[in-house]
Amino acid sequence: MARMLTFYYAPGTCALASHLALEYSGAPHEAVRLDFKQQQQRSPEYLRVNPKGRVPALVTEHGVLTETPALLQYIAQTFPDAKLAPLDDAFLLAKMNEFNSYLCSTVHVNHAHKARGARWVEAEDSAAIEAMKKKVSQTMAESFTLIEEKMLKGPWVLGERFSTSDLYLTTLTRWLEGDGVDVQRFPKVADHLARMDAQPQVRKVLALHQA
Amino acid sequence: MARMLTFYYAPGTCALASHLALEYSGAPHEAVRLDFKQQQQRSPEYLRVNPKGRVPALVTEHGVLTETPALLQYIAQTFPDAKLAPLDDAFLLAKMNEFNSYLCSTVHVNHAHKARGARWVEAEDSAAIEAMKKKVSQTMAESFTLIEEKMLKGPWVLGERFSTSDLYLTTLTRWLEGDGVDVQRFPKVADHLARMDAQPQVRKVLALHQA
Repeated sequence: MARMLTFYYAPGTCALASHLALEYSGAPHEAVRLDFKQQQQRSPEYLRVNPKGRVPALVTEHGVLTETPALLQYIAQTFPDAKLAPLDDAFLLAKMNEFNSYLCSTVHVNHAHKARGARWVEAEDSAAIEAMKKKVSQTMAESFTLIEEKMLKGPWVLGERFSTSDLYLTTLTRWLEGDGVDVQRFPKVADHLARMDAQPQVRKVLALHQA
Repeated sequence: MARMLTFYYAPGTCALASHLALEYSGAPHEAVRLDFKQQQQRSPEYLRVNPKGRVPALVTEHGVLTETPALLQYIAQTFPDAKLAPLDDAFLLAKMNEFNSYLCSTVHVNHAHKARGARWVEAEDSAAIEAMKKKVSQTMAESFTLIEEKMLKGPWVLGERFSTSDLYLTTLTRWLEGDGVDVQRFPKVADHLARMDAQPQVRKVLALHQA
């Protein structure tokens, strides 16, 4: 794929996972940062790219792609030399997608009840919004207990094979502190975080997000 | 794959989508029904199959798989003759997964705030639980507006190619009435529902779920 990809992200969001996949894959890409405080994700220009008004979004020569699990497998399939997915093993690929789907539909959703409660109740209902916030540290801790005990095989999520699930896990692990959960409660997850922090691709993309 | 698959489901859940995929694929499988009213999904036996205590779960010769988007692609890949996924086109496959991921992480989550609000606030907080229920018809209608206007190409979700996204969409479309949303507000979705209702595989699996 010779054409340059355009990738839309915002700091502190799940777009970090796909951004890491692009970096690991060596895909030629331009990363465009959206300022959520300025509500750039709701601008008419961006809504033409992604009508959901969310990140990540990846503009390819074939069209726009959104949703982290879909982007992760697409990047892995399009740049197979980076070995970001077990493309030769349908069951293990399904385990990767199972893990990514759990992060997307359960763990990310738990987290979203802290700052995005108005998606599910009226924004003016401050009691309900507060009730949601209050439970986030519990639901995040429950999810990471499952990850620690049942999902993360070690050293990587799928065992010996590094995959997109590691990029996605390290993205959501970084939300724990802000959600009031000490990652040290989960030794395997904490070890995973430390090993990911040591990778040059992670340092490079994090520096960009934190700039 | 000669070994019999074992598939765990419960009526009224998203497990219908994977059950349909098994039926369309011709996969030899035994379907085991769990009684959620009896809390069978929380029994020690079932938690050994799926520690999340949810459905669907598919027991294969390689191990257990959960999470609808992962199951759908796995069944499509394992039984390619059924042509349930555009396996020859990475971009179109990503569009299938993008759609399935949206249903899983946004539409299903909207719906879950009606009966499963206690996942995100204390079960005793009846005011917050009620506040969540009240917004479900609005969030479901918003999601189906996006599906109608931006996602469902017609006649099938991906256009001319039938895929697992059609099985998943018809599963969640069937929740609209209970969520207080008239499917007739969405002509393309209503047409999709009618065409799916006419398919013998859908009739067969629905009859089993409704028995």
